[in-house]
Amino acid sequence: MSLIVTGTIGIDTVETPSARRARVLGGSAAYFAAAACPLTPVRLVGVVGGDWPAEHRAMLEGLRGADLRGLETRPAGKTFAWGGKYHENMNVRETLFTDLGVVGEAPPTVPSVFADSQYVFLGNTHPSVQRGLLTQLPNRKIAIADTMDLWINIAHDELMQLLGEVDGLVLNDSEAALLTGVRNAVTAGERILAYGPKFVVVKKGEHGAVLVHREGVAAVPAFPATEDMVVDPTGAGDSFAGGMMGHIARVGATDFETLQDALTWGTVMASFTIGGFSLEGLRDATPDAIAKRHAEFRSAARIA
Amino acid sequence: MSLIVTGTIGIDTVETPSARRARVLGGSAAYFAAAACPLTPVRLVGVVGGDWPAEHRAMLEGLRGADLRGLETRPAGKTFAWGGKYHENMNVRETLFTDLGVVGEAPPTVPSVFADSQYVFLGNTHPSVQRGLLTQLPNRKIAIADTMDLWINIAHDELMQLLGEVDGLVLNDSEAALLTGVRNAVTAGERILAYGPKFVVVKKGEHGAVLVHREGVAAVPAFPATEDMVVDPTGAGDSFAGGMMGHIARVGATDFETLQDALTWGTVMASFTIGGFSLEGLRDATPDAIAKRHAEFRSAARIA
Repeated sequence: MSLIVTGTIGIDTVETPSARRARVLGGSAAYFAAAACPLTPVRLVGVVGGDWPAEHRAMLEGLRGADLRGLETRPAGKTFAWGGKYHENMNVRETLFTDLGVVGEAPPTVPSVFADSQYVFLGNTHPSVQRGLLTQLPNRKIAIADTMDLWINIAHDELMQLLGEVDGLVLNDSEAALLTGVRNAVTAGERILAYGPKFVVVKKGEHGAVLVHREGVAAVPAFPATEDMVVDPTGAGDSFAGGMMGHIARVGATDFETLQDALTWGTVMASFTIGGFSLEGLRDATPDAIAKRHAEFRSAARIA
Repeated sequence: MSLIVTGTIGIDTVETPSARRARVLGGSAAYFAAAACPLTPVRLVGVVGGDWPAEHRAMLEGLRGADLRGLETRPAGKTFAWGGKYHENMNVRETLFTDLGVVGEAPPTVPSVFADSQYVFLGNTHPSVQRGLLTQLPNRKIAIADTMDLWINIAHDELMQLLGEVDGLVLNDSEAALLTGVRNAVTAGERILAYGPKFVVVKKGEHGAVLVHREGVAAVPAFPATEDMVVDPTGAGDSFAGGMMGHIARVGATDFETLQDALTWGTVMASFTIGGFSLEGLRDATPDAIAKRHAEFRSAARIA
């Protein structure tokens, strides 16, 4: 059903209390695509530099249903690179460095073969870039944007304009609090609805997520993962969005119930991501493994 | 089905960012009983002093199905009193004072008319006192204990002995981390199972709760309350336990599925408690209001 994602493709260096991985595949669009592909085909729009490792390309190309015709290589540029370190049992993340590289240059464009895309996810980047991408997707049935504290702080007006143009916003609880001045996730979501979107998904990491929609509210716990299951939380939020949008596009509906169901699929796909570095955890997400994890989650989160 | 609760009856003074109430009815057993009574009759065991206000007694006597024959008055003593203040949008609670009064003297005893009780909740107090009460309830089908950081720190051995004697433990996520050294709620719960109980309920406040049971794991979000709905969080945890035990006793079963369903009822009853000071929120929990709130929560937390 023509799901498209725009976002970063990055080279990540990640340190956890027990391990370290240098220059592995990362970036919001990579995690999103790897989480959505098991559910529905994904069109990817992004840019990489001449230094992008061949094995990273091979990994994305290996994703069943990923269409990389929107992945632009700029040979003279450098790929977005990020370094982070987890402290205190994965609860606190410190960013060690961010090298924007080509992500700091002219934004990618949507190739004409993707222009008919109906299900649109605007990964986290400057809201003006997100708005520019949106205008290239006139056939969209639903557009959801991600954002982060940086843009709330330095591009507030542009973000507000974006919120008048998208159907939904996905963000962390701390970002929702920053944007609205309200710590309560439901009330913060309601405030954001007043800025324009039909719904907001507030992600709470290990505590699950809340959907605040014009038509109602939904809450979902995180997958009840044990300590051993959490190898590297990097990309869990992007994978949540990927699973969520993958379900929406697969079903081909955008009503409240579909969005609520989509929270479950986001949760399930994110639970694979945290199980390994880079896309390693998602690599294990075979159809059987996904069905099994989904059944486990349904059972654990069943409401009488 | 003969649910019995032992715990404190207190005189609370509570300050929130927007209001203050002095010397209102509080205490773990009061909140527990008020939350459980709409589901099943409750037998209450506790002690108060000569200073206990008549209106507090009237409020407990007004609870339909509350049996106060285990409530002992010690005319020469003072009632347990607690003062607390909430900061940062209700997220941080500061204890201003704790006057143990009669709670620091000889523990209450279980009256002979309550000795046949089958469903036992041992509210938070010194684990030696909890053990002493447990021996007075030989017909118990299930016994669940609450505890707190104080006892984990100063009565660790007695708490470990208690954990070998009860079926379940209820505690906060921070207390579970303190007891086990593990921050992950599921893994912390698993560690506690190794100390003896069949299951552990880890309460996460606004983030819901996790049940870690020998037979499986269950997770439930909190009721997605808006900021306006949270007047005073005091007693939410005790009310959660009351709703949970109320359901267990009403159903008359102690299997995993019943415990999982009980999390929902704990969540529903706690959502009333936060809506007012003292027992005011729970006073609104009429059968119709409970059914409505339960349906709202089922709908919001529905899993596809």
